[in-house]
Amino acid sequence: MARDPKSFCSINLALEVFGDKWTLLIIRDIMLGDKRHFREILQSEEKISTNILTDRLNMLESRGILTKGNDPSHKQKFVYSLTQKGIDLLPVIAAMAQWSLKHEPVSAISQQHTQPIAEGGPELIGRLSDELATKHL
Amino acid sequence: MARDPKSFCSINLALEVFGDKWTLLIIRDIMLGDKRHFREILQSEEKISTNILTDRLNMLESRGILTKGNDPSHKQKFVYSLTQKGIDLLPVIAAMAQWSLKHEPVSAISQQHTQPIAEGGPELIGRLSDELATKHL
Repeated sequence: MARDPKSFCSINLALEVFGDKWTLLIIRDIMLGDKRHFREILQSEEKISTNILTDRLNMLESRGILTKGNDPSHKQKFVYSLTQKGIDLLPVIAAMAQWSLKHEPVSAISQQHTQPIAEGGPELIGRLSDELATKHL
Repeated sequence: MARDPKSFCSINLALEVFGDKWTLLIIRDIMLGDKRHFREILQSEEKISTNILTDRLNMLESRGILTKGNDPSHKQKFVYSLTQKGIDLLPVIAAMAQWSLKHEPVSAISQQHTQPIAEGGPELIGRLSDELATKHL
């Protein structure tokens, strides 16, 4: 399990879980890209390494953010699902997208995918969370 | 300046700026703790090192998130101010606090400080952003 946190500040506790360059990209892939298998996430544009992906998936599982199950359609494959704790990262993802869309050179394709979430407000976040719950829980 | 981003996805671009364990703690201190001097941020509970703090403040300045000015009341001190790009990180901070308050063992004192922001919704975020603009811009 994880080391003792540096503090029990809410911001710090969140950063101790996903304060790195990769963890929220994995969550993005599962949440918005519906990528549920290791190999699919590995193929994303940012080219995460096998080692880092394995490490982060294990961490997310141990933190109760993902569950790993057998895929009924592929005997040798695992399928990753978000828990409620994972689905509740949607507002963090949305707030980050909103900030980048205003201040960073976001590509047209990413703008198309993330602007609705960034600008949809609490009502859309609620609706998408319900959809994710139906799919993942 | 920064290296080329791994992708121009809005989530990735945000992570390339503040996807680490320390950057958003510095923003928290300046934004919510009204810590405007190097030494004040250094004294925060998480005990950031001088090296990391120097590195991140320089990065935040080069990214246009902070400005560094002379403090009129202390000849040898610099005072750090948020830009609009920095103030616009408030919804990210709020979303992270909201997630931790629901899912992590946040201390009573941090709960007291961050719950109002986490639960205030867009209206409170707007009001606090205006207050920060008055103070920093």
